[in-house]
Amino acid sequence: MKNIISNINKAFDHRVRLGIMSVLMVNEHADFTTLRELLGVTDGNIASHIKALEKKDYVKVEKSFIDRKPNTRYIATKKGREDFQKHIDAIESLLGQQQLKP
Amino acid sequence: MKNIISNINKAFDHRVRLGIMSVLMVNEHADFTTLRELLGVTDGNIASHIKALEKKDYVKVEKSFIDRKPNTRYIATKKGREDFQKHIDAIESLLGQQQLKP
Repeated sequence: MKNIISNINKAFDHRVRLGIMSVLMVNEHADFTTLRELLGVTDGNIASHIKALEKKDYVKVEKSFIDRKPNTRYIATKKGREDFQKHIDAIESLLGQQQLKP
Repeated sequence: MKNIISNINKAFDHRVRLGIMSVLMVNEHADFTTLRELLGVTDGNIASHIKALEKKDYVKVEKSFIDRKPNTRYIATKKGREDFQKHIDAIESLLGQQQLKP
């Protein structure tokens, strides 16, 4: 039997990752500082979660220069968007259907 | 500035806890075996997450005998229900509003 949490993706199962992905779902890209400020977590914390999402191919990094200053920005990949949507659908369906048979 | 994940409750921020709470939100109670089967995780895993939810006063335990056999069942407390609802609202609002200003 399939269990009720099997569609919840471990790679997204943390509030910082939920936060990063939800920002990147509706914005073409976001830079490190923006993400850090929106999420209110430390550099190291956010970096480690981004790294994990990168490793899964859910987020990609673009490095460039803006006014000669280095700028790093993050973009959700197609796979990232698709799998995150599935994750959200799994949470919603988990919340909607757990009435046990008497 | 309040950050966008500050209303996401750390105590619920794990798929096993989401699973336990979502079962207990719509059922008056559930026993250990039922939870374990629904969630498909090991005894130790589920026990440690229930313990954490108990510690936060989100879940309470009732021990009784059914046909002379010991039975342990779990119930979401009023506080647990309220805080879980807030957690869900926080996730929904996180997912709905992250368009950055250009």
